[in-house]
Formats: sequence, structure tokens, C-alpha cells
Amino acid sequence: MAKGIVISVEGPEGAGKTSVVKALLPRLEAYGEVLTTREPGGVPIAEKIREVILNPEHTTMDDKTELLLYVAARRQHLKERILPALEEGQIILVDRFIDSSVAYQGYGRGLAPSDVHWLNRFATDGLVPDLTLYFDIDVREGLSRIARFRGHEVNRLDLESVSLHERVREGYLAILEENPERLVKIDASQPLETVIADAWSVIESTLGERLND
Amino acid sequence: MAKGIVISVEGPEGAGKTSVVKALLPRLEAYGEVLTTREPGGVPIAEKIREVILNPEHTTMDDKTELLLYVAARRQHLKERILPALEEGQIILVDRFIDSSVAYQGYGRGLAPSDVHWLNRFATDGLVPDLTLYFDIDVREGLSRIARFRGHEVNRLDLESVSLHERVREGYLAILEENPERLVKIDASQPLETVIADAWSVIESTLGERLND
Repeated sequence: MAKGIVISVEGPEGAGKTSVVKALLPRLEAYGEVLTTREPGGVPIAEKIREVILNPEHTTMDDKTELLLYVAARRQHLKERILPALEEGQIILVDRFIDSSVAYQGYGRGLAPSDVHWLNRFATDGLVPDLTLYFDIDVREGLSRIARFRGHEVNRLDLESVSLHERVREGYLAILEENPERLVKIDASQPLETVIADAWSVIESTLGERLND
Repeated sequence: MAKGIVISVEGPEGAGKTSVVKALLPRLEAYGEVLTTREPGGVPIAEKIREVILNPEHTTMDDKTELLLYVAARRQHLKERILPALEEGQIILVDRFIDSSVAYQGYGRGLAPSDVHWLNRFATDGLVPDLTLYFDIDVREGLSRIARFRGHEVNRLDLESVSLHERVREGYLAILEENPERLVKIDASQPLETVIADAWSVIESTLGERLND
């Protein structure tokens, strides 16, 4: 490949993004070198920022502070991981990216989406994924999956109200409508094997030619 | 006083801001309750962000990441300390505020000043100090003062080149020219007592009526 490809993976909590990424990895590797990574975090400075964001003691964190921290972590992760891999022509599979800020801090927290867009552009120098897989799931179903699988490992965001997560999902559906050329919705309430098959079929049909380049 | 007053204190490293703030405190207290505070830091979440910014191991920190972290710390400090004190009608003396980002990350690092202004407005909801004391000093004189007084306590910013600090000073002088109604330059190369006297005379002449309200 002459130039790399960025695929972002988005969705509310408990949509199963991690399991799908794991299953997509070997299939993508058939086409070239693949970097799988996640936000917030992925590089040491961004991991430190992640700790500040998710610390359960930080109950007085202001919504704008939270957004600025996510965007700071995004910037560092982009510079140190995504851009170098892109330069090398790799396929990058990133778990959460620009749309998470719009859905969570914009629609979820009620900050102006235009401000979130400005910050995303500032942090990414305008980089937008080639494809975004949006894993859609009913909020209560997603949250109950987390409770079942993760058990006691609870962070600050898990403690938020169901209504926040409802607004986040509405946000994702709005982003989907505004960016039909980039986002594809996948029904994450299906059995995992079907979700993976759907995701792979979307990747092949939208990026097939570029993958084979 | 019906409404509080915000005085910010700015200047390159080693200008003696801390000593001046200490000396101004009792004089201001004659007029009402005074909050002295500093950026980055001042509240627990902002202190955690400060640790990420100043960690000497974080040599790969991108300039935009650094700016976003300073602005995140500013937001949290404003919400938790400055705004509540302002509401109570206090006099707030803050060591570094919006102009530091313009001088250091804008002029010093070479980020677009218009982007820094956008981020400042986002973080402060447009709050601008009533008065800004800019302590001006020759860069090498300032840096040699730090070396003399602080000894071995060195952070990431102290390790930067002299040319960065020269650009920061040029930045402050540009901000001064653009905001003559808000910033007042004080010659910080004078003996400390003279610097303090100058600073106090500026405060009395510009804010005298409001202090006596």
C-alpha cells in the first residue's frame, strides 16, 4: 500500500468493540501490517492523561476540562502512534476516536458540537478516518453486558447515569446521519460471530480496493 | 465590593513574580478578602494535570498536547477556585493566566496565536482579568536568577533553550502592545522593593476606585 488506512471503531459502552477488533485483526493482517490501538491512552503521556480522566476520585471534573483532556490525549496518541504508522502505510484500527468526543462530551455532556469539532480538527490537523464502524446497541443491554463481564473494575464513566448513555447513543445516531459516507452502523445486539461477519463485510465492501493496493 | 476583581501576574521565568505576590497580599487584604493562586495547578485535578505537563520524562510531548493540557488545567482551576471567589466579591491574584499560553505556546512554541485565543475563550467562558501586571526582565538575567535561587529543582520547561525564552518575552511584549488597557509593564530588573512599589502604585492607580467600593 502506498498510504495507510485509518479505521475507527465507535459505540456506546458494552457494544463489544474490543472483541470485534480482536477478531478483525488476523483478517486485516492478510493485507498488510496492522496497528490496533485505543483512546484515551496508547502511548505513555496519553496513558497519564487517561489516568487523570478516569480517576474515580475526580468527581468535581468540569465537562470542558474532561473534553480538553480527551483531546490532549488524542493529540499525543496521533503524533506518536497513528501518524508514524500511517506514514509507513499500515492499516490502523483505533478503538474510539473523534466521534467519541462528539457523542460523549457534545451530546452526552451538552457541550456545543461545533466546539468539539473545532477541538478535534485542532488535535488531528484535520485527519478523518477512512471508515468508521459504529456498533449500535441498546443502552441498558450494553451496560448490563459490562456489569456481567467486567465485574468489579469500575471507572468514573461507568458511574454516570443511564440518561447520559442514552444521549451518547442519540449523538452517535446523529453523527451517523451527518456522515453517511464515512460511518457504517452495525447491529451489535446480534451474536458476536454475526457482528464480526457484518463488520468484515463492511470493511471489504468499502475498502476492498485500497486493501488490495 | 459588589463583584470581585481578577489581577493576573505574568512574566518570563525568574522575573520574581512569586516574591511580589507575597508582598502585595497584605496590602490588598486591607481592601477585602484576597485569594492568591497559581497556574498550572491550584486545585487537585489541575495539580494532576500540572504533573503530566512538567514531568521531565515527558520529552516527546507535542506542542499542541502541551497547550491543551495547560488549558484543561486553567478550566478546572477557574471553575473550582477563581469563579467561586469572584462570586463572593474577593480580590483574586493569579500567578499566570491566559497570557502565559499566548506567550509560551503561541510565540514560544510557534502555535497560531488565534488558536490559543480560541482555547483561552473556551476555557474561561471569555473571562479576562481586570488588570495584568507584566514583569519584564532580560531572559538571561531571569534564567540566572532561577539557577541561583532554586538550585537543583529543575523541571521540563527549565531545560528549554534560551531562544525559546527570548520568543516568550517577545510574545509578552506583543500582547502588551495589543492590550494597553489591560496590561501594565513593570521593570523587574530593579531592586525587589522598587518592583513591589511600582506594582502597588499600578494597582492603586488603575483599580483604586473599585478597591474602595
